[in-house]
Amino acid sequence: MHRVAVAVLAGLSVAIGGTAAAQQSDVGAYRRAHEREILGRLVDLARIPSVAAQPAELDRTADWLVGELRARGFSSRLLAAGANAPKVVFGQLDTPGAKRTVVFYAHYDGQPVTASEWASDPFVPVMRSGPLSAGAGEVDWRQAKVALDPEWRLFGRGVSDDKASIIAFLAAFDALKAAGRKPAVNIKLFWEGEEEAGSPHLAQILKDNAGLLAADLWLIGDGPAHQSRGRTIYFGARGTLGLNATIYGPARPVHDGHYGNWVPNPAARAAGLIAQMRGEDGTILIPGFADRVRPLTRDEKAAIAALPAVEPGLLRELAIGAGEGAEGLTASTMRPALNLRGIRSGRVGAAANNAIPVDAEISIDFRLVPDQTPDEVRRQVEAFVAGKGWTIVRDEPDAAMRAAHPRLIRLDWEAGYPALRTDMGLPVSRAVLAAAGRVDGYPALALPMMGGSVPIYLFQDVLKATVIGLPIVNHDNSQHAPNENLRLQNLWDGIETYAALMTELSW
Amino acid sequence: MHRVAVAVLAGLSVAIGGTAAAQQSDVGAYRRAHEREILGRLVDLARIPSVAAQPAELDRTADWLVGELRARGFSSRLLAAGANAPKVVFGQLDTPGAKRTVVFYAHYDGQPVTASEWASDPFVPVMRSGPLSAGAGEVDWRQAKVALDPEWRLFGRGVSDDKASIIAFLAAFDALKAAGRKPAVNIKLFWEGEEEAGSPHLAQILKDNAGLLAADLWLIGDGPAHQSRGRTIYFGARGTLGLNATIYGPARPVHDGHYGNWVPNPAARAAGLIAQMRGEDGTILIPGFADRVRPLTRDEKAAIAALPAVEPGLLRELAIGAGEGAEGLTASTMRPALNLRGIRSGRVGAAANNAIPVDAEISIDFRLVPDQTPDEVRRQVEAFVAGKGWTIVRDEPDAAMRAAHPRLIRLDWEAGYPALRTDMGLPVSRAVLAAAGRVDGYPALALPMMGGSVPIYLFQDVLKATVIGLPIVNHDNSQHAPNENLRLQNLWDGIETYAALMTELSW
Repeated sequence: MHRVAVAVLAGLSVAIGGTAAAQQSDVGAYRRAHEREILGRLVDLARIPSVAAQPAELDRTADWLVGELRARGFSSRLLAAGANAPKVVFGQLDTPGAKRTVVFYAHYDGQPVTASEWASDPFVPVMRSGPLSAGAGEVDWRQAKVALDPEWRLFGRGVSDDKASIIAFLAAFDALKAAGRKPAVNIKLFWEGEEEAGSPHLAQILKDNAGLLAADLWLIGDGPAHQSRGRTIYFGARGTLGLNATIYGPARPVHDGHYGNWVPNPAARAAGLIAQMRGEDGTILIPGFADRVRPLTRDEKAAIAALPAVEPGLLRELAIGAGEGAEGLTASTMRPALNLRGIRSGRVGAAANNAIPVDAEISIDFRLVPDQTPDEVRRQVEAFVAGKGWTIVRDEPDAAMRAAHPRLIRLDWEAGYPALRTDMGLPVSRAVLAAAGRVDGYPALALPMMGGSVPIYLFQDVLKATVIGLPIVNHDNSQHAPNENLRLQNLWDGIETYAALMTELSW
Repeated sequence: MHRVAVAVLAGLSVAIGGTAAAQQSDVGAYRRAHEREILGRLVDLARIPSVAAQPAELDRTADWLVGELRARGFSSRLLAAGANAPKVVFGQLDTPGAKRTVVFYAHYDGQPVTASEWASDPFVPVMRSGPLSAGAGEVDWRQAKVALDPEWRLFGRGVSDDKASIIAFLAAFDALKAAGRKPAVNIKLFWEGEEEAGSPHLAQILKDNAGLLAADLWLIGDGPAHQSRGRTIYFGARGTLGLNATIYGPARPVHDGHYGNWVPNPAARAAGLIAQMRGEDGTILIPGFADRVRPLTRDEKAAIAALPAVEPGLLRELAIGAGEGAEGLTASTMRPALNLRGIRSGRVGAAANNAIPVDAEISIDFRLVPDQTPDEVRRQVEAFVAGKGWTIVRDEPDAAMRAAHPRLIRLDWEAGYPALRTDMGLPVSRAVLAAAGRVDGYPALALPMMGGSVPIYLFQDVLKATVIGLPIVNHDNSQHAPNENLRLQNLWDGIETYAALMTELSW
């Protein structure tokens, strides 16, 4: 508790000085005067369908971003690993006399969409007066007079994850320029285009450009702010490892009356396997899975304890009666997770036939924590599955293969990557918290590790960089789901936080 | 063993006499001379989409059947329970001097279809040279010269379940008429149109027409013959009880990184519930579930032991490595079954998002055995689920309801009905086995209870009738699934079996 309190007080004490006030006034004033212009730029960016399925659109997005940077006096270019890989937008602007160099990371690609599940076109952003769950209707923000209602939300794929961070940076830079204030650090930008695809080329790009990317700190502009809506800094993120498993039943659907009890039921077996791997409270029952879990430090435990309680609000907001386990939200996301993303077998409801399905498919998203590695988790899971009598295959088995093995399972692993946690006690960690605190004098919320994943381990792994997270968007943004949205106040706060970290950061 | 052996020998001894030979020759000869005509009639019947979703087509089918019966000198009319209920086609033809009356049951409605999953239009029957799994191609049976290849198969919804039984009866009747031979019993026909919907009006129709339907024996022309392709008689059928269960997660999909371990995962909970209810070998773990299971008699055990072993062939045919339990197929279907018809939650494969799904849906088809009742099973399942901490609701819960109950499950029960097993030792039981054995001198296969369900309990329950099953279609007919089909040899054999039971039955 102690050391964190110090860091927080440091932030607070400085905030009482004049700098914060000054900055608030000019950055805030600039934003209020340019709200429609800032939103217009975000809408232009969000109108480009920057998804993995459309590589040409990813290229278009990258070119658009290079233009924005050059227009602001940055040197900017595209970094790529191979012709077919989405490009990284790199930008650079040195500050005369600055000793520190900070890379601002964000990604311009978004999650895939199933347009039919959206209330409006994912790539034609619309403003609504609040969340869809509240039955909010569309509003014409272009005609409305500023200041716009800060509870309005912009809906569209990528507006929140992660194009908001890019626009917040650009707006903060414009605001400082308008106020004639200079950054305190050399600025580099690293905006990638394949984060939602698991960043398969990121390591290569970092290796190929190690010199260009040299820096004292990477600030990761991705992920949602704390549910309490306070400005948030995170010091790590869980890793991720995706798995799609297929369990096989009879070669054709067979009548469950004539054959039920003798022909194996793949849906039942899928359920059994899941129940063997995961406890009711989310505990992972795979032997050895927790062996490499690094314990939380005193700082980290203290920081978690210091966070405002959000569970009661979340229970109401999500209409759930209780959390999975006894822990609070943040404590629970410090553990590894076995998430069921989906399961499919046969048919349900009115479409159900009295038949034993031919297969069952399970989609799992493991979330890893330090010091687990995807390779080790893969080995542990496969050893566990094999230990339960399953024969593991990588491709679709033929009839002979299916007939030869009573329990046959196909495992398709996604790439995945490990977690990262930066020590909250480092001078740079305290400096980031202090700078963020200077926005309005109130301490920023310190999250030891974000539950969600960003491939930030690579920056440390390949570049030995220090990595800290700077999330600005609302937690209730339907990230990775239909009707993704951005709450305006989060964008406005984010602009001021970015401005503070460009101008107030020193260690 | 003993008593069954006697029944079988009785059949055999009589078969050595001249009757069988005579009948074989004339019925068989008639069939060979009229194959295309018989198939044409089945195709005409199968072209009518007789499914619950199309009540007008069900009426059209019933009218068509009445016409077929009247054309053969039967008195025929429609029986109905209310204007909106599918009609029962009733027919009657008395045989001067006959002491016994036999009702031949079949149903003219078929399972629902998902046309996109079929290799050809479910209601435009096509002939193929064999099973689809063997890559069989279409053949032009109308131009081919008789005798047609008996391994050819006709594909279409209802061709096998259960329109084949209706056509087999009509063809057998025509063959006997052509040979100038009279039935040995008074014949009644009861062809219903809502069997695949669970026969919701059957009880009412039986009650309303008890006198009209009085008979010494009901022969149920439904269900597949034994996998060994031998002529089969069954003495009962399992009951059925359908359940659709919905388990609720967060009100909207939430990011499984930021919330995984705290927000309850409905797919994991659905899997857990299934694993609690059903063992790996299909054993039902719900307390008391087996209490009302009537033990098999010595005859029944002996009959099962006397059946040809079909498991090795089925393992190959279905490309499975082993049965669920250690028992053989028939023994396993003497137990109750908890069949997973399907499960759905979130998304899998390439469509998977990193989100915790909002719900999970499970479709279960319980198969019941004597003396279980649907009401009791319903009570046992709900007591079990409630005992695991679930709050059971009947309708879609609102947000307040969801927030108020940590474990909320919606249970939608289908009507369902109990099982029936007729004593194989009864004189009528032996007489049916003997008559069926006279077709070619080889004993028919005696199945104590069919794994699949037909609502035959009602005939005993309401009419106190004796009920025995007369299945003719191939077991590998994709019943209740896409590409339902009928193997021609099964239809040809069925015609001779129907002829034998009309002419050779006495007790």
